[in-house]
Amino acid sequence: MNKKNHSNLSAGIIIIGDEILSGRTKDTNSHFISKHLIKAGIQLQEIGIIQDKEQEIINTVLKYKKKYHYVFTTGGIGPTHDDITSKSISKAFRKKFVFHPEAFKLLEKYYSKDGFNEGRQRMAKMPKGVSLIYNPLTIAPGFIIENVFVLPGVPKIMKKMFLEVLKYLDKGNPKKIVTINTNLYESNIAAFLKDIQNKYLESSIGSYPYFNFNSKKGGVNIVVSSWTMENLDNIVLDIENMIKLKGGKSSLV
Amino acid sequence: MNKKNHSNLSAGIIIIGDEILSGRTKDTNSHFISKHLIKAGIQLQEIGIIQDKEQEIINTVLKYKKKYHYVFTTGGIGPTHDDITSKSISKAFRKKFVFHPEAFKLLEKYYSKDGFNEGRQRMAKMPKGVSLIYNPLTIAPGFIIENVFVLPGVPKIMKKMFLEVLKYLDKGNPKKIVTINTNLYESNIAAFLKDIQNKYLESSIGSYPYFNFNSKKGGVNIVVSSWTMENLDNIVLDIENMIKLKGGKSSLV
Repeated sequence: MNKKNHSNLSAGIIIIGDEILSGRTKDTNSHFISKHLIKAGIQLQEIGIIQDKEQEIINTVLKYKKKYHYVFTTGGIGPTHDDITSKSISKAFRKKFVFHPEAFKLLEKYYSKDGFNEGRQRMAKMPKGVSLIYNPLTIAPGFIIENVFVLPGVPKIMKKMFLEVLKYLDKGNPKKIVTINTNLYESNIAAFLKDIQNKYLESSIGSYPYFNFNSKKGGVNIVVSSWTMENLDNIVLDIENMIKLKGGKSSLV
Repeated sequence: MNKKNHSNLSAGIIIIGDEILSGRTKDTNSHFISKHLIKAGIQLQEIGIIQDKEQEIINTVLKYKKKYHYVFTTGGIGPTHDDITSKSISKAFRKKFVFHPEAFKLLEKYYSKDGFNEGRQRMAKMPKGVSLIYNPLTIAPGFIIENVFVLPGVPKIMKKMFLEVLKYLDKGNPKKIVTINTNLYESNIAAFLKDIQNKYLESSIGSYPYFNFNSKKGGVNIVVSSWTMENLDNIVLDIENMIKLKGGKSSLV
């Protein structure tokens, strides 16, 4: 099967933070970003959740930046010693790690000269020559280096800054998605779904079973999606007909 | 800074599923696994969320199996055409993709001969020679190949099966963790936290600020953790003293 079903624009997300890997914090940033990317016609192809470790950050950023049009990192750009994202990304791009003049001024103004201590100054240090991503809530900016967008980890701040960044990205056609629910078992629909998938190579047909262990009832959500097809009506019709033939019920979700 | 702070046992998780990357489904499996691993003294070092794509699965599994003691995959072992995890892992390990005799019998018995259709039979196909991970809820088993544990994606089933697997893994000392809350700003404590971190290289000191944008109040949770130190009392005392010196309040969380 040789599928031709992808957006012309791809993306990867790198979540940087020991606190996610230790189970202390739930990552909610990647889910937020994923939902906005798909609407913008940008296909999220990979999420990596990695440690606050210089070499891991360098390797992952270099791999993703080559592989995807857009890379978003979250986490590790605060004022403390464990915030090593900016420095690591400087190394990845072989750029000097220096005070960004505008970031320095913004932070100095916000904290006033007396309060602009070592930790706060740290947040103005970035790879040389980057563009800022402004932070409307707590001032400390993120930055853009080539195709990599460096964002903070605190979800409320990250989300505001991501939505701002999103305005300036190239957009594709949003992915077309239709979901059909059926009361049939997944294994009963497997064979015909495969046939229908093989008929429409520009689409993806995903099958997501669910169970209610109390009522002992379940079903399947069949998700038909495509980045490239104009409409999905024929696929949906084929699936609905097959469900009927098998004696099942179907409804659009 | 040359830290010596890791468990002797490491792990990685690979979440396989387009439905996570498209934002349709929230991944809850990795958070569940992460919380159990840390208690078992196994250090989760990386989570990868990847597409249902053969080459991606092969590359990621091969990378993780070399890097970590234990690798857990979730997703893609159901009965439909989009479930390609087992076949991809067969290719990664250069094993034949065949019916597992015991899995075949278990499924055949569960569904009875008449109901044991092509889709259901698919769930008995695995790399040749693997050990099964039994599924107490819906029978279709996962499997173990070398250090890779292949689990389903449906959270309720995955969790039961993971907890069973966990019993048989080597365990380390659980990570010791103390959390100190303070009302000081993160940037005010950055300098002394760095000094304390440099004094205790066998620990990690993480700093996690939070903000309440309504009350305009915030604070920091300082998380002191170690895989190797016997106790963290001295570090906690140092941090509490520094917070006091800076005029802040602290409490153990």
